[in-house]
Amino acid sequence: MIELGANRYGKGGIHIVRVDRTADPHIVRDVYVSVQLEGDFAAAHVAGDNALVVPTDTMKNTTFALAHDHLDGAIESYALALSGHFLQFPQVARATATVREVAWRPLQTSAGRSDHGMLRDTSMTRTTVVRSDRDGASVRSGIEDVALMKTTKSGFSGFPRDRFTTLPEVDDRMMVSSVSASWAYGTSSGDWDALHGRVWGTLVDVFHDHFSPSLQSSIWLMGKAILERVADVDEVTMAWPNLHHWIVDLSPFGMDNDRTIYHATSEPYGMIEATVRRSDVVG
Amino acid sequence: MIELGANRYGKGGIHIVRVDRTADPHIVRDVYVSVQLEGDFAAAHVAGDNALVVPTDTMKNTTFALAHDHLDGAIESYALALSGHFLQFPQVARATATVREVAWRPLQTSAGRSDHGMLRDTSMTRTTVVRSDRDGASVRSGIEDVALMKTTKSGFSGFPRDRFTTLPEVDDRMMVSSVSASWAYGTSSGDWDALHGRVWGTLVDVFHDHFSPSLQSSIWLMGKAILERVADVDEVTMAWPNLHHWIVDLSPFGMDNDRTIYHATSEPYGMIEATVRRSDVVG
Amino acid sequence: MIELGANRYGKGGIHIVRVDRTADPHIVRDVYVSVQLEGDFAAAHVAGDNALVVPTDTMKNTTFALAHDHLDGAIESYALALSGHFLQFPQVARATATVREVAWRPLQTSAGRSDHGMLRDTSMTRTTVVRSDRDGASVRSGIEDVALMKTTKSGFSGFPRDRFTTLPEVDDRMMVSSVSASWAYGTSSGDWDALHGRVWGTLVDVFHDHFSPSLQSSIWLMGKAILERVADVDEVTMAWPNLHHWIVDLSPFGMDNDRTIYHATSEPYGMIEATVRRSDVVG
Amino acid sequence: MIELGANRYGKGGIHIVRVDRTADPHIVRDVYVSVQLEGDFAAAHVAGDNALVVPTDTMKNTTFALAHDHLDGAIESYALALSGHFLQFPQVARATATVREVAWRPLQTSAGRSDHGMLRDTSMTRTTVVRSDRDGASVRSGIEDVALMKTTKSGFSGFPRDRFTTLPEVDDRMMVSSVSASWAYGTSSGDWDALHGRVWGTLVDVFHDHFSPSLQSSIWLMGKAILERVADVDEVTMAWPNLHHWIVDLSPFGMDNDRTIYHATSEPYGMIEATVRRSDVVG
Repeated sequence: MIELGANRYGKGGIHIVRVDRTADPHIVRDVYVSVQLEGDFAAAHVAGDNALVVPTDTMKNTTFALAHDHLDGAIESYALALSGHFLQFPQVARATATVREVAWRPLQTSAGRSDHGMLRDTSMTRTTVVRSDRDGASVRSGIEDVALMKTTKSGFSGFPRDRFTTLPEVDDRMMVSSVSASWAYGTSSGDWDALHGRVWGTLVDVFHDHFSPSLQSSIWLMGKAILERVADVDEVTMAWPNLHHWIVDLSPFGMDNDRTIYHATSEPYGMIEATVRRSDVVG
Repeated sequence: MIELGANRYGKGGIHIVRVDRTADPHIVRDVYVSVQLEGDFAAAHVAGDNALVVPTDTMKNTTFALAHDHLDGAIESYALALSGHFLQFPQVARATATVREVAWRPLQTSAGRSDHGMLRDTSMTRTTVVRSDRDGASVRSGIEDVALMKTTKSGFSGFPRDRFTTLPEVDDRMMVSSVSASWAYGTSSGDWDALHGRVWGTLVDVFHDHFSPSLQSSIWLMGKAILERVADVDEVTMAWPNLHHWIVDLSPFGMDNDRTIYHATSEPYGMIEATVRRSDVVG
Repeated sequence: MIELGANRYGKGGIHIVRVDRTADPHIVRDVYVSVQLEGDFAAAHVAGDNALVVPTDTMKNTTFALAHDHLDGAIESYALALSGHFLQFPQVARATATVREVAWRPLQTSAGRSDHGMLRDTSMTRTTVVRSDRDGASVRSGIEDVALMKTTKSGFSGFPRDRFTTLPEVDDRMMVSSVSASWAYGTSSGDWDALHGRVWGTLVDVFHDHFSPSLQSSIWLMGKAILERVADVDEVTMAWPNLHHWIVDLSPFGMDNDRTIYHATSEPYGMIEATVRRSDVVG
Repeated sequence: MIELGANRYGKGGIHIVRVDRTADPHIVRDVYVSVQLEGDFAAAHVAGDNALVVPTDTMKNTTFALAHDHLDGAIESYALALSGHFLQFPQVARATATVREVAWRPLQTSAGRSDHGMLRDTSMTRTTVVRSDRDGASVRSGIEDVALMKTTKSGFSGFPRDRFTTLPEVDDRMMVSSVSASWAYGTSSGDWDALHGRVWGTLVDVFHDHFSPSLQSSIWLMGKAILERVADVDEVTMAWPNLHHWIVDLSPFGMDNDRTIYHATSEPYGMIEATVRRSDVVG
């Protein structure tokens, strides 16, 4: 017997910019939105019956309309309103809203801060994924596209060696990553911007303030500190690619390279992923 | 209490090309490989102890070495050898090898097929993910980066309308997608190339030979046919973005556009995902 | 004194798909179009006067409208019509239409060739740039995104060595490139598809049929042959990145690697560019 | 007769990171470098003779070696040293060094600025192209990947209308661009960082402080001001894509959208390019 398994559908890549010109400086919100629905959609698959299929075009229209009223605050608030909206359809069991935000900063001119001229800051993408069902909503927020580097206080040694091992041990290496992190909030309301700031601030503090024997250790230390300092966070998951920076051997040219010149590479890369969680929480 | 949850690590982005010059034409295999390990790595995280941490650099060396002996056949065979290799480390509970392959075809010259000149065919990426643990290995293969189009025999109507619905019903639209599909084999040995060919052939046959009332329906029909025709496949999962092609309104210019000229867009896009499986199999 | 120098403006990224359902199989044309205008636009710059500025939105509408009537043939014909159209504006001195085309091929099903199901073939992008001014039109066509490989019959030796040279000489290496080539036609009418086919066929023939001592030499040989065999071509310009494939040293693992396993890299890359032309033509 | 025309070759995609750990905070320089040579290379093309071909691998080694000694200052200084180096080869008539730099900023921790923890700021790429020949060197610097927005003080009206024009006139629109600009310095020595800062500061000041009737006008005003305020700049060339932000019509949903919600698009896009120069300079 053949049957339909897990299925979902929705709209992605909706790029919305919301402008509030009543503030000084103007407030610009720049978000990419996607919506996914799960529920009673088997008939669409097995019988070609669209009677319950809310069109993805309708989802797109809805993201624009709700952005008007709900994107004046944090993306978490908007995503809560958006995912909650789709529960008005009885056939929808779960609605997921994913929002990625990039920041625009007022330009600094020689006459002061501009009220309407903006520079996009792509140093970090802020994310949230909100899932709403009949039992409530869960909020998972995070960061993407954040490149971090430790120029010292990082090494890698004490590892096992086998036939295929050629890596030397090092006690002072470059540690460079393009970080993705997300964390589950234990609440569906709160001062989202403040919470986000405390998580990021903790991550930065710990990233700076330790000797890293491995990315594994650093991820654990950062995740643990986030849970210790931000009570509303139940669980943190991080993916840290190890973007290798190799010391260039300049000795064939009669030059000494005392950890000054590195060849930065993007491939191959290491990838270290881990979750840190409260033990009384189902992660 | 704070604890370590799920964790894994490995190497990605390893680009290997293997050449067999004894064949005519030469055989070129072009693969991107990644390896991920799960197991007893808590000490690395919580104690900064690397004694059990097989370096990702060693993983990279291993992928090259094993490609020499095992990439003469299908990527599934190579991935089986590669993931199985890492179980020799007692601390490894599960090793996952992911291989993506692009094809090189001998050039057609005016004097016939070249023996050593090749053209890369990027119309499809073939993938496999093999997971090996102490109980055996599972093989999941698939395709990516395949753009398919139905110029007719596709529509979308009969859907519900609400306050935010503006989409008209259509009985003849363009259906364009960039398909990702993967399927679980019920076996860990077999003629992988032949199996892959039968799955792809079935997908193509059904894609062509039906009127599509929705992507949901098409995915079901293709998945069902694959399971019916390929006994070694237990489950198929597909993700079909709906890459909208909108009819351009040429009437303001005094022209009629009878479904000839479309504005192709990449964002926003619909996204339809579903699994089709045998009901006696845990998917 | 400060003055306005060279300037132009236009619209880019216009993605048009044209479908002819009267043919069997259906004919799908998938093009990215841009248009650039040069002429009497100084007032827009220095006086903020838009009276002569044909809006780029109008250009976009025009590309759609003219695709209806002119994209039934080769992209060169369409680009000629499109760039010529804008000369109706007296302020336009030169109009440039750039068209990039990717191919869709009918699917092969078990019951034969599909009439309406298509697979996108991204192995090559075909391009044309047509410039029209009051003296006529020039047509420059080409190819992009074509990856070619010679698994043998390629080396690099006899080069000078200085303090910074570490590269060994090799008499049998992998030669891999992602080719961009364009050529100027000496005519503004012709059987564009046939001409394009003859240029590509010549390139392939020569690419296959020579030992390459360097990319420089190969480019010259291919360019020269194209000019010899296709009388309507006056000049060929090619850019061949050298995508290095390095032999992996497997000897630390007790293995011999007789030019079988290569580490393929995308950065850094060599880049060889040259023009080959008829000496009686101003290139 | 067939002959070799313009030709050049070199190495691209060399990613170098230089670290100075003697400063507090550490100084990180992150650059992508390419080198191109022109000169007496015809024999390599037409005779397959590599006797004068400095290998691109040697160029790569040279970029690393010279970065050790010359990348402690501005990228212009490094590019001058690098391109000048290759003139030691008699066969080299002109050497071009292109450097693109992204910035790393010290992390702000709760205990103050980190000395060794860095965040990559991708809001702007700084570029330079230095060409050295037997007559001296020319320096052209610039910026890339800078997204700027004016939320108001921008419109577009007074343009001509034809059969294909549907665009309405607007007196208050969003103006959003991802800017590329480069400028020619009239000197081959100077305080490059200060000069760069003055150009960017002028661009920002003018971008903020005017009503823009068109991108054409804005480019002129910014370019003119740069030449007026920075005597060492002879010419400025800018390319400003117009990244359209369309007001979403919410009226079908019974909502008013008073320039609050925009649909941001990346394709199609306008593209406005112009050079502003001193009239006594050959641009």
